[in-house]
Amino acid sequence: MQTEKTIEWIKTGDLKGVSRMIDQTLIPYEYKKIDIKTTNEMYDAIKTMIVRGAPAIGIAGAHGVVLAAIESLDKDNFKEEVIKKANYINSSRPTAVNLSWAIKKQLEIIENSKENNEKTVELLIENAIKLENEDIEINKKIGEFGSAIVPKGATILTHCNAGALATVGHGTALGVVRSAFEKDSTIKVFADETRPRQQGARLTTYELTRDGIDTTLITDGMGAYFMKKGMIDVVITGADRIALNGDSANKIGTYMVAIAAKYHNIPFYIAAPKSTIDPNIKTGDEIVIELRDRSEVVEINGKPICTPKVNVINPGFDVTPASLITGIITEYGIFKPEELYKIFE
Amino acid sequence: MQTEKTIEWIKTGDLKGVSRMIDQTLIPYEYKKIDIKTTNEMYDAIKTMIVRGAPAIGIAGAHGVVLAAIESLDKDNFKEEVIKKANYINSSRPTAVNLSWAIKKQLEIIENSKENNEKTVELLIENAIKLENEDIEINKKIGEFGSAIVPKGATILTHCNAGALATVGHGTALGVVRSAFEKDSTIKVFADETRPRQQGARLTTYELTRDGIDTTLITDGMGAYFMKKGMIDVVITGADRIALNGDSANKIGTYMVAIAAKYHNIPFYIAAPKSTIDPNIKTGDEIVIELRDRSEVVEINGKPICTPKVNVINPGFDVTPASLITGIITEYGIFKPEELYKIFE
Repeated sequence: MQTEKTIEWIKTGDLKGVSRMIDQTLIPYEYKKIDIKTTNEMYDAIKTMIVRGAPAIGIAGAHGVVLAAIESLDKDNFKEEVIKKANYINSSRPTAVNLSWAIKKQLEIIENSKENNEKTVELLIENAIKLENEDIEINKKIGEFGSAIVPKGATILTHCNAGALATVGHGTALGVVRSAFEKDSTIKVFADETRPRQQGARLTTYELTRDGIDTTLITDGMGAYFMKKGMIDVVITGADRIALNGDSANKIGTYMVAIAAKYHNIPFYIAAPKSTIDPNIKTGDEIVIELRDRSEVVEINGKPICTPKVNVINPGFDVTPASLITGIITEYGIFKPEELYKIFE
Repeated sequence: MQTEKTIEWIKTGDLKGVSRMIDQTLIPYEYKKIDIKTTNEMYDAIKTMIVRGAPAIGIAGAHGVVLAAIESLDKDNFKEEVIKKANYINSSRPTAVNLSWAIKKQLEIIENSKENNEKTVELLIENAIKLENEDIEINKKIGEFGSAIVPKGATILTHCNAGALATVGHGTALGVVRSAFEKDSTIKVFADETRPRQQGARLTTYELTRDGIDTTLITDGMGAYFMKKGMIDVVITGADRIALNGDSANKIGTYMVAIAAKYHNIPFYIAAPKSTIDPNIKTGDEIVIELRDRSEVVEINGKPICTPKVNVINPGFDVTPASLITGIITEYGIFKPEELYKIFE
């Protein structure tokens, strides 16, 4: 089991510190942590997916505001400087709402602080660490609620990585897997490779096999084949932003899996914290889908896989409509998409 | 345009010759032909996919029987030896029926030959070359019939490579694309990468961009995203074996695309010659699905993409049920799946 936090604030002295994170671009080849010390480094770490996964980049955003505050300590217009740098970090990736959610939480502290700049930085650090610890607690609750929908001996199909590596620890979709595995060690996981960035192959198989969970890697085109053969009992994925009606944005490819699950009458669940639900948007049509660089599609491990003459469109996410979702597993219980709004009541 | 045959018999002297083929494992890095001179080499060439694509491996099988006959010229039990070697070649890949179809065509010549062994070899060579040329003619007819279902300015989604490289020339699904392009140069193609072997990325984008056709590479999980955005007008793929009821085996991942097309009310067509239809099987349930090596899933270009501790199941094909297929485009016209049996009448 991953006993270390995927991302955590490390104090290195008075009002000093770094955001220490597992470099996820190196897994499975190398397990290494790096220290992010500036807001520019944080922007790049999120953008290049050294840290990724909606809840984890939320924490990265929270740490980013701390770094922004440290960098702005001596500025006359302290608040404005921090807000400017926070907005810059927030622009690194548009789809996951957790990033803006966590940044907003930190900016509220700055807005409400009656203290001097130094003391405000301390409050920000305190809050960032609180968010880290809450994330793990939330995921354990998601896991506990979610494990109830995993049949005995079930095989769970998942897409991308909504695991310990996508969060501070335990994971959302893989948190459900972990909690279910604690009760029933005969469950199995099928992990989609998840091209282009291969988070399923690189990260999900890495963290699940490390925990001793029986894991089978399949390519993104194989899911329906195994569904038809009766080898998949339930699909569980994470989400990056959920609309009030239950429409859920998640890693590109999720939508195809959800359609295939519906076709085979296999339940399809989303596992995500309340902070992934965006109360400001009514349907998935309003979710901004990040378009990423062509190199992710045309190269693997730095080597081209096709002619350079080809066009590429590289959406990082797609939206699975509420009609394909059996339930949304949160730290407050499992909601049918049409009842999700109640989580805010 | 590819003016050379993907695979062809080259005479190198009296009763001598080689099967010359484009080495498809090298594309897009290198365009190179290799000469296959023995039945053992032919078995390996088919198995390792130096030559692939149902119609192309049909021709490889026909050439293999020629090589078997040349190797058996001096044997007392000529026919039995040839049949034994032919069966060996036939065992190289189980799913595509064209392989056994072409081998059977050649063995019929041996069975019916009243000539001596030398003359029989000449008949086999003659027949192999006839099959090569017929393949191109058939594909042009498939292209002509198929181009009628391509709307003006359409974007066609295809999976894997059913192109010139999968046949002797012109292609089946990509034959339809080529014939449509001759009439309307504004059509476009979206090509699925097609993991694990990436025939879409490596081969389809290569041969279409070479012909000046606007081609966009997408990963296997992206199809539904673009369908929902209204960017795909029709899906056309090849097939490796078609049951009498229209159920069609094709490269793994096709089934997911077909389900997604149905969900979005987008027409889904199979393009394949009559020789891909297996009159001996009633439904897709009877089609043997080849399971291939784990290395294809866990490595790309020789480099691992995941932890070695992961399990792998690697089916080479899946079966798209007739209910998801709008029509099957053949050299005899376009058939609804439920009327496909009429092609044998």
